[in-house]
Amino acid sequence: MINNSKNIEESLEHKEKIVLLSHGAGGQLQNELIKFITKNAVLRRVDDGIGLDEFDDGATIPLKEINKDIVITSDGHTISPIFFPGGDIGILSATGTINDLLMMGATPVAISSIVFIEEGFPFSKLKLIFNSFNKVLESCNVALIGGDTKVFPKGTLDQIAISTTGIGFKPSNLKILDSNLQPSDKIIITGTIGDHGAAILANRKEINFDTNLVSDVAVLLPIIKQINNLEWIHAMKDPTRGGVAAALNEWAQKSNVSIILDESKLPIKKEVKSIADILGLDPLELTNEGKALISVSSEYAEIVLNRIRKTEIGKNAEIIGEVSKDHPGKVMIRTFLGGTKFINMPIGEPVPRIC
Amino acid sequence: MINNSKNIEESLEHKEKIVLLSHGAGGQLQNELIKFITKNAVLRRVDDGIGLDEFDDGATIPLKEINKDIVITSDGHTISPIFFPGGDIGILSATGTINDLLMMGATPVAISSIVFIEEGFPFSKLKLIFNSFNKVLESCNVALIGGDTKVFPKGTLDQIAISTTGIGFKPSNLKILDSNLQPSDKIIITGTIGDHGAAILANRKEINFDTNLVSDVAVLLPIIKQINNLEWIHAMKDPTRGGVAAALNEWAQKSNVSIILDESKLPIKKEVKSIADILGLDPLELTNEGKALISVSSEYAEIVLNRIRKTEIGKNAEIIGEVSKDHPGKVMIRTFLGGTKFINMPIGEPVPRIC
Repeated sequence: MINNSKNIEESLEHKEKIVLLSHGAGGQLQNELIKFITKNAVLRRVDDGIGLDEFDDGATIPLKEINKDIVITSDGHTISPIFFPGGDIGILSATGTINDLLMMGATPVAISSIVFIEEGFPFSKLKLIFNSFNKVLESCNVALIGGDTKVFPKGTLDQIAISTTGIGFKPSNLKILDSNLQPSDKIIITGTIGDHGAAILANRKEINFDTNLVSDVAVLLPIIKQINNLEWIHAMKDPTRGGVAAALNEWAQKSNVSIILDESKLPIKKEVKSIADILGLDPLELTNEGKALISVSSEYAEIVLNRIRKTEIGKNAEIIGEVSKDHPGKVMIRTFLGGTKFINMPIGEPVPRIC
Repeated sequence: MINNSKNIEESLEHKEKIVLLSHGAGGQLQNELIKFITKNAVLRRVDDGIGLDEFDDGATIPLKEINKDIVITSDGHTISPIFFPGGDIGILSATGTINDLLMMGATPVAISSIVFIEEGFPFSKLKLIFNSFNKVLESCNVALIGGDTKVFPKGTLDQIAISTTGIGFKPSNLKILDSNLQPSDKIIITGTIGDHGAAILANRKEINFDTNLVSDVAVLLPIIKQINNLEWIHAMKDPTRGGVAAALNEWAQKSNVSIILDESKLPIKKEVKSIADILGLDPLELTNEGKALISVSSEYAEIVLNRIRKTEIGKNAEIIGEVSKDHPGKVMIRTFLGGTKFINMPIGEPVPRIC
């Protein structure tokens, strides 16, 4: 029997669509997966708070009587290996959640966590992981208020996964949003790009580079405290899965502006460049776990930059680009050679379980 | 070489302690696991809200200016099979979280969910699961405000796991707490005992009973609405993992009272009795997913009972026991034969992934 192209097309149509690794990788496919899961949700926000459709770092529930918003953010953490240079899944879970609250302009107050554990997992490792987790909370004055644990039979979960939900408060008039970039804003990055992604990849069993590179995992609280005036800031985002490329493309699309980066200004460590080169990856698509992108009015950009540089985690901060009203939705880069090229939304970071 | 008992003891001490399936089963071992994970958390509540140490269905963050509490509850859902008689992991996740908020006396407002998916999982199943999930939210006027998705490489997670965090509000003067049972209170159960646990077990591949029994998974909102006066109620709890036995033992310990059940009053379906008998399990230790235990002042017990019975899901409600100040911390049952025996805290339900 000879298949004609129509038959092939039909068989493809009938072939069941399945979830791919890249559906979890923070790029375009992940957005599609989330939209698929949530498309039938009827109520998508509380009152006029930030909800599902904003797709921001967190959601808000307005408390009108007191001019405050509750800010809520939820994350799942599945990193492999669970202990990595510079941290472990415990630090990562607590840090990621606190950073998401900070990126909305909120003061983090409480966390609840759900821990999925594989049968046979040693208590000694649990101890290390939750010592790390609890230390991060303590350092930020955040309470652990509850959670849940579930145990999977051996072979049905790889070691451990942690879900965290963070709760904070922000003044309702403070709008630090993905959709709030303004033309002529400057874009600041608070430090070197791609360290976490490169460090994890270099230490995967199947790669195992010899490098001193460690993850940048860190809470961004010292930077927020040092800036000390969030009114100047239009948007903040920690470029985790999908990296700087995904974060900036989201901003450009949601704010209907373009962002033009200056390649000569991008702080990237030599080791990160080498690892990315060898693996054929773009550092701009690698995950960061202790960095913020900040979009700020040009008149305050230098002040904010200098304040950030006073912190240990922000000493390598740079103004890496600016916002324009031309070419809305696009992210571009002026290269060393003088040309300009587009930076596209990653389809999906090619490596699973990076955070 | 002959081992003496001291050597055996030493080797046991040095053998690494590992997580067992029963650490996830809602009994005494689960409490130990949670205490182990959280022991180094320094901040354990927000202001004078309910936090870690209360170990209740949820936590609270007081909003003093408006005499309200935010109520927060987090759950992990790992049931196997993910589609079961009477429901699926989607209904279960949304229902369990909404019920926990209701059991604290809160009005549920919003949910965020984190979905862990195995690579290769079909979108057709995701569609069914999240249609179920979103329908439950719609029926309770609860908004889906955010979440996260992560994909595990094939073979590192069995199909799907869902974490949910629910947010609601309650008046701050309403104290419906595990620690609030009063001597002479009556204990109501809103329907038959053990249906969910028995239905899931009967349908496990390795057991596969022929039965029409279905899970009782249901939101308890109609019952709460019908009661219409939560001031009468001292404590409410949905007896999920560890069943009625675990829930009542927690109550007795936290409230420093005893609870005496009347075996002749326990509503248990014949099918559940048979399945439990054959598997050597106690229906009182089986999971329920659509039932509430309610501790209420004796003067209001009949009124509350009659209101509950007016609802479809509460038509089999019964007053099953009472609270006493004698033998604090103990749960007892007056048997059909006239004797009295203790009902102990389950060590850990003997079957994993029941919810």
